[in-house]
Amino acid sequence: MTAVDLPDFVSRHIGPTDDDVATMLQVLGYASTDELLAKAVPGGIRAAEALDVEAAASEPAVIEELRAKADRNTVLTSMIGLGYYGTHTPPVVRRNILENPAWYTAYTPYQPEISQGRLEALLNFQTVVSDLTGLPTAGASLLDEATAVAEAMTLMRRGAKAPKDAVLLLDAQLMPQSIAVVQTRAAALDIDLVVTDLRDVTDAAGLRAAAGERDVFGVVVQYPGADGVIVDWRALVAAAHEVKALVTVAADLLALTLLTSPGELGADIAVGTSQRFGVPMGFGGPHAGYMSVHKGLERNLPGRLVGVSVDADGAPAYRLALQTREQHIRREKATSNICTAQVLLAVMASMYAVWHGPEGLRRIALEVHGKAVGLAEALTAGGVQLVSDTYFDTLTAVVPGRADSVVEAALQRGINVWRVDNDHVSFSVDETTTDEQLAAVAGAFGVNAPVPSDGELGWDGALVRTDEVLTHPVFSAHHSETAMLRYLRTLADRDYALDRGMIPLGSCTMKLNATTELESITWPEFANLHPFAPSDQTVGIRELITDLEQWLCEITGYDSVSLQPNAGSQGEFAGLLAIRGYHEARGESARNVCLIPASAHGTNAASAVMAGMKVVVVKTAPTGEIDMEDLKSKLKEHGEDLAAIMVTYPSTHGVFEDTISELCSLVHEAGGQVYVDGANLNALIGLARPGKFGGDVSHLNLHKTFCIPHGGGGPGVGPIGVREHLAPYLPSHPFAEELTGETGPVSAAPYGSASILPISWAYVRLMGGAGLAKATEAAILSANYIAKRLGEHYPVLYSGEGGLVAHECILDLRALTKESGVTVDDVAKRLIDYGFHAPTMSFPVAGTLMVEPTESESLEELDRFSDAMIAIRAEIQDVLDGKVDAADSALRNAPHTAESLTADDWEHPYSRRDAVYPDGVDPLHKYWSPVRRVDGAYGDRNLVCSCPPPEAFED
Amino acid sequence: MTAVDLPDFVSRHIGPTDDDVATMLQVLGYASTDELLAKAVPGGIRAAEALDVEAAASEPAVIEELRAKADRNTVLTSMIGLGYYGTHTPPVVRRNILENPAWYTAYTPYQPEISQGRLEALLNFQTVVSDLTGLPTAGASLLDEATAVAEAMTLMRRGAKAPKDAVLLLDAQLMPQSIAVVQTRAAALDIDLVVTDLRDVTDAAGLRAAAGERDVFGVVVQYPGADGVIVDWRALVAAAHEVKALVTVAADLLALTLLTSPGELGADIAVGTSQRFGVPMGFGGPHAGYMSVHKGLERNLPGRLVGVSVDADGAPAYRLALQTREQHIRREKATSNICTAQVLLAVMASMYAVWHGPEGLRRIALEVHGKAVGLAEALTAGGVQLVSDTYFDTLTAVVPGRADSVVEAALQRGINVWRVDNDHVSFSVDETTTDEQLAAVAGAFGVNAPVPSDGELGWDGALVRTDEVLTHPVFSAHHSETAMLRYLRTLADRDYALDRGMIPLGSCTMKLNATTELESITWPEFANLHPFAPSDQTVGIRELITDLEQWLCEITGYDSVSLQPNAGSQGEFAGLLAIRGYHEARGESARNVCLIPASAHGTNAASAVMAGMKVVVVKTAPTGEIDMEDLKSKLKEHGEDLAAIMVTYPSTHGVFEDTISELCSLVHEAGGQVYVDGANLNALIGLARPGKFGGDVSHLNLHKTFCIPHGGGGPGVGPIGVREHLAPYLPSHPFAEELTGETGPVSAAPYGSASILPISWAYVRLMGGAGLAKATEAAILSANYIAKRLGEHYPVLYSGEGGLVAHECILDLRALTKESGVTVDDVAKRLIDYGFHAPTMSFPVAGTLMVEPTESESLEELDRFSDAMIAIRAEIQDVLDGKVDAADSALRNAPHTAESLTADDWEHPYSRRDAVYPDGVDPLHKYWSPVRRVDGAYGDRNLVCSCPPPEAFED
Repeated sequence: MTAVDLPDFVSRHIGPTDDDVATMLQVLGYASTDELLAKAVPGGIRAAEALDVEAAASEPAVIEELRAKADRNTVLTSMIGLGYYGTHTPPVVRRNILENPAWYTAYTPYQPEISQGRLEALLNFQTVVSDLTGLPTAGASLLDEATAVAEAMTLMRRGAKAPKDAVLLLDAQLMPQSIAVVQTRAAALDIDLVVTDLRDVTDAAGLRAAAGERDVFGVVVQYPGADGVIVDWRALVAAAHEVKALVTVAADLLALTLLTSPGELGADIAVGTSQRFGVPMGFGGPHAGYMSVHKGLERNLPGRLVGVSVDADGAPAYRLALQTREQHIRREKATSNICTAQVLLAVMASMYAVWHGPEGLRRIALEVHGKAVGLAEALTAGGVQLVSDTYFDTLTAVVPGRADSVVEAALQRGINVWRVDNDHVSFSVDETTTDEQLAAVAGAFGVNAPVPSDGELGWDGALVRTDEVLTHPVFSAHHSETAMLRYLRTLADRDYALDRGMIPLGSCTMKLNATTELESITWPEFANLHPFAPSDQTVGIRELITDLEQWLCEITGYDSVSLQPNAGSQGEFAGLLAIRGYHEARGESARNVCLIPASAHGTNAASAVMAGMKVVVVKTAPTGEIDMEDLKSKLKEHGEDLAAIMVTYPSTHGVFEDTISELCSLVHEAGGQVYVDGANLNALIGLARPGKFGGDVSHLNLHKTFCIPHGGGGPGVGPIGVREHLAPYLPSHPFAEELTGETGPVSAAPYGSASILPISWAYVRLMGGAGLAKATEAAILSANYIAKRLGEHYPVLYSGEGGLVAHECILDLRALTKESGVTVDDVAKRLIDYGFHAPTMSFPVAGTLMVEPTESESLEELDRFSDAMIAIRAEIQDVLDGKVDAADSALRNAPHTAESLTADDWEHPYSRRDAVYPDGVDPLHKYWSPVRRVDGAYGDRNLVCSCPPPEAFED
Repeated sequence: MTAVDLPDFVSRHIGPTDDDVATMLQVLGYASTDELLAKAVPGGIRAAEALDVEAAASEPAVIEELRAKADRNTVLTSMIGLGYYGTHTPPVVRRNILENPAWYTAYTPYQPEISQGRLEALLNFQTVVSDLTGLPTAGASLLDEATAVAEAMTLMRRGAKAPKDAVLLLDAQLMPQSIAVVQTRAAALDIDLVVTDLRDVTDAAGLRAAAGERDVFGVVVQYPGADGVIVDWRALVAAAHEVKALVTVAADLLALTLLTSPGELGADIAVGTSQRFGVPMGFGGPHAGYMSVHKGLERNLPGRLVGVSVDADGAPAYRLALQTREQHIRREKATSNICTAQVLLAVMASMYAVWHGPEGLRRIALEVHGKAVGLAEALTAGGVQLVSDTYFDTLTAVVPGRADSVVEAALQRGINVWRVDNDHVSFSVDETTTDEQLAAVAGAFGVNAPVPSDGELGWDGALVRTDEVLTHPVFSAHHSETAMLRYLRTLADRDYALDRGMIPLGSCTMKLNATTELESITWPEFANLHPFAPSDQTVGIRELITDLEQWLCEITGYDSVSLQPNAGSQGEFAGLLAIRGYHEARGESARNVCLIPASAHGTNAASAVMAGMKVVVVKTAPTGEIDMEDLKSKLKEHGEDLAAIMVTYPSTHGVFEDTISELCSLVHEAGGQVYVDGANLNALIGLARPGKFGGDVSHLNLHKTFCIPHGGGGPGVGPIGVREHLAPYLPSHPFAEELTGETGPVSAAPYGSASILPISWAYVRLMGGAGLAKATEAAILSANYIAKRLGEHYPVLYSGEGGLVAHECILDLRALTKESGVTVDDVAKRLIDYGFHAPTMSFPVAGTLMVEPTESESLEELDRFSDAMIAIRAEIQDVLDGKVDAADSALRNAPHTAESLTADDWEHPYSRRDAVYPDGVDPLHKYWSPVRRVDGAYGDRNLVCSCPPPEAFED
């Protein structure tokens, strides 16, 4: 290990102590970590120099530095609107979800048995969205409103019975950032867009006229519009349906408590953001986008969907539904690349609705509307003209030639309003708006203070909502803080997260999310910034972003970094767009083939398709490496058309392939670009730099390698690093002049999930270059230690030189399964009984388990896990030896609930004690699965994706 | 209920909704709450007017107001020392303990089975104290260092074989606030003190000389001294022992990692504070005081003591040891009145030690010492004279006539140092001190920047610590943040706190501790103030204190309030001292009898004794009320000597006695003062004011009535309110000019546990007068609802007019116990199986359970509890009916662990399911007791009060 004197934090982050390291090295038969690394990592890619990133003195010192940056932001009252509003996070929700490791360190609920708490919370979210939008099936979150509109575009493209060259119509009052993101996505897919005023379209002829007399596959409108105006879209919807087009309504959830729902208007799809349900603006994100669809479209819904099913005892149990839709399974046939979404934020938004309930939400909406009415009346009385008298919370004033001076006058009063153009200014009120702030806005127009009205709805009866929403008891049972606190605790207690034990998920890097790293994200100076606020108000966060970009360049060896992509999937998409832009600029736009190894993450292929590329698969050799012969033949075959190759390094097999340099050279010689997927960057930092060993572009996952907690399936951040020649093609943004790239935006906000960037900033700052390298070394050592201990019991599928793996290892259960009937599922679920989250199942090879311990687990925990796996192997042996029938083994019956122990007659061939406290499980540390094994297929056959009635849970 | 339009928070705080209230009233047969109250509360005491306390607009508004107050504090670097030092709270500890309701909403661990997590944490604390002080038995915390010294005084007084008129010797370098508090306590007990320089005392003759040739029962020295000087006290200790006196060493825990322990010096008792182990200074508190004693004194240790015992299965289990020592049992024979201590802060301090381990603590101490050495060398080189060259972290400089100008120069540089007198200035470094701050201090003396030394110890070898400490594995197992996080979660998961369900503890008022109320306590502007900082730096917190004092006056009807007492017990003591001072000032110092009803809290009697009074018990009538005839006869008998009566109102029987007015008149006529114990103030606020219906003084418990969380047994705040004539006798403080009372201080800091006062401030501000009154109404309604529902199954022992109770009710199990053999213990432990914390057991009447639901529980939870109690009654019926043998009933075997289900042969007459999921228990909400019933007596016979070896937990 590095001998440098490291800050205290490094030893807090890294699990194994120096003594542990010595023990592990001895087991592996190496004299030093350096010796191990020399063997494990190909010399050709090793970086010659140490990382030039200085460490901070200590955790308090980092907090002070963050404090100083926070102080350089100026938090004015942002009434800019455009999808970002002030909101009160219920304190009980903030403390017990956003600041509670039981929630934020959880993984995506792929193991439903140990994720029932967050699955229930997500089901609440889906119910909120579905109820408020009036459409029956809602997903468990998307990345933001703008990408949700883009996803709606492709969903409509598939779902509408329109000719191939049909166009998409966007109303001119769609949020401008949504229009920009859709343009980026549409261009890649060769979809034509028309952005125009659709408010007067009332029939099919009008619709076709608006589309320039072309066929239309889809229409998107905003409800209320970006200018605040509420339009009754019924006639437009009918017209669209008449020409077989589908209609998406981008709607404001709070307004929907008062407005006729999109479903009732006839919309096919509703999208939007749930930010204002208690999630701070955070300089743009993260927050949960949403989508709901009418019946018939649910199987095409992008992103994850939670549904109700049953467990082995027939009890109701939640799990992710219709998983075969997901990109990691459908690969190049996928229709979206979204995987990590915004679970933590969706949970918060759902709890905001649980906290306020239907009446509370309606009251808040009425108060907001009342403030807007009061302001509008005052302005009108003062002679200010508004563009409309039908609005919810946003007003647009007509100020010919005076927009700048009004904006300036508001600024003087501590308020940000929005300069629409030279002649128009708009502004939105929200639940946080005070009378003083209303007065300040009015004052900016030279008008006297307004008086909030009593909340009479200022719109046509046809748009007044009359149906009841959120009638499920969960939305009325937890309105006292005591009740809410207990509900949140009860849900958290059902789940397994990093605060209970190891989550050894290969390719997911479930490492420590340190408190100091997380501390600043709820500070108002970071949390309460509007993403489109004037840049002189956001100096501190911009500095932080610049630091992080520079550090990531140093770490990856690239020349430029974009932090805009708010998930790894969006990073992949942005990276491929950069490649596409580069080829196009050089007049080689015919280059559209993307080579992808058979072992790649499914998302790679999905992203390539989204970027308008053709996927060609490169074979994997039996040794797990990329088949270089096949690569050469594919290069020969597609050389002229070659756009890129996407490779993961170390490979998804968890091995440092020594052919990487040759591969990069071959691709470059063929005129292609090398995309190095950064999923496994945790094995590289401080040892090797993709930007130096041959990569042209990589996306990183800050939520894997850089300590942003997984949040149960988001938020994520997927920045991309590029070499100099690709830098001109990084994402831009209409409201961020400094982003000068020639590619359009891929996220709604200029810096995506900006408010969580302090987490990664703090991690790098706390570790410094030497600490980061030491972490990588510990991650590799730990993986090899586990591979060594378990290799005697389960074959390790792939390894590199010296039989060493990188930072993860694949345990091959296929032969055992064949002989014993015991499956990877059985082992995964049995691990729950032993107190562990399962490793990654059947990826990248079906029938295997991929284990990634990360650097943060202590030797004690590595041993506890290894011991459990070895004990399970012994249980499998009993099956092999015929002592136990697989069909009635503790493996097949796993997980066992406490309730299952209470059966008067225990009819299994193993004891109750062996069921729940097998070898090595300490009763004082027992995690109890709340349900038995969940039947996924049952739920998919009987799809229920909103809260089930309480009776479902009765015996 | 009050019809006023209340802020949203009121409905968040109060559990029952308006609909619930209607349901409950219907069950009780009242048309309205007003009608119920008119019956329940004697008209004679009802307040005529509503509370004049305005509510804030909303929770965010209150946070803004607190923010504004915080901003009016100026947080300079306080190097004042004197027992208060800067410290880094480990972030993982702050977030997962101090900001985690699972820890802070817990109750005192009287029910050990459901308190194993915090009991383990406290055992860690005891081990830390015991190891570092070198004395075998340490208690689970005291209130602060100054009161710990005072407790040591009485312990020595009892323990030493000295004549009655022997004196206590205090070294002049004992912390000045400790001297002041000891003086207050000693005066009340007629103990003579001598404060003198003991540094040169080396033999018995010298000791007697120092004592003015009187006998000595005890000696207290500071180690290192208040001036920073380290003295080898061995000779003094030997001299003291020679004259049969005991010796207490007040020692700094951090210094003890490097200094020879008090135990090794021969001390009998060690006391001090654990503040600098990760607990912010907080303007004086709260933090955990400590005491440890040599073998033979453990049964006299004041405060709570955690010990190891076994459960019904013989497994190790923790519980409070030697409980018969406690004041609530010993009453007037008690030797201390301490009950609520500082559990939450002791837990934090213990986790600071777990986090850093012995090596880490030593490293921190060496760094601190190195900074002091560097500073000393720089000052000396610069010509500044220091009083000694033997110090740990505190230096005293000799600056003849220039103290003020040095203090001012330091202030100019952002540093508070301490003006000892005109010629001396002292200052302490700590783990947070930076090089810049060292330079600033040096600069204040006109000296160039110092260089921290490498931490060589600057003292004699005889005082260099050589023994190993904290060798228990717990202090080396959790040094990575991941490991620590899991350890904290594991402990929390064993415990039952308000975040799981109702804690219906009569007389303890376990109500909501809302997040908004708690939010500001960790803000640096409140957390990082030194209690003796110049008052112009603490404007905001002083404003807050003034507000709170005024509101408490309005609420209680008193004229003045002191917030200094940092527990209810200290409030009682201070209140009685005020009475004592009043009588003395009027020349009636012979008045020393304190009447106390038989049903009173035991603490009352203990406090009276501490205040130098003689306790005379007044009988309780069979109806539960004070026996007025007995009162009259006692008044007749003791009229001349009568100092006071202490009554609780409503009575500890949970009833509004209508004789209260008469009682007050009679006592006043006899020349006595009326002390109204505020334990049950939750039944009065907004309805009646003790200061108006006859009380002269009351203590309140902010941790009961005013939402400070119980923290597992502290912190508490026990302010006293007094009528005008007693105001001159409120506690003063040597370092707070504005506290002009004639009574000395009762706490180390002028405002006791100042940093948690924002909690109560926020509660009052959020509720307003109308909200507070509504809460009282809800509390009374809920108690009556429970009394009504349960009265049919268990006799309600006492009630007032119309069969109504106040805010709690006593369920009488004595007849059932007699007939069935099922005890209150059995019911209490069986409630754990049902998912509840037991009500108060056997207080104020043995064989009963006292239930206080508070206003914060929803009707659903009230019903869940009632249903459980009714189901338990049915289980008792089965015993009565002979169906089940009490000795092998689910009642007697309760609580049942999950592990107990795994027995292959289940030999009980009830099923496994009935054991753990009896009627109404939802498996998805199950709380699992981590141990079976704990055998307290076993542990008392085999006293073990520090961490047991890990082998103890092996099967």
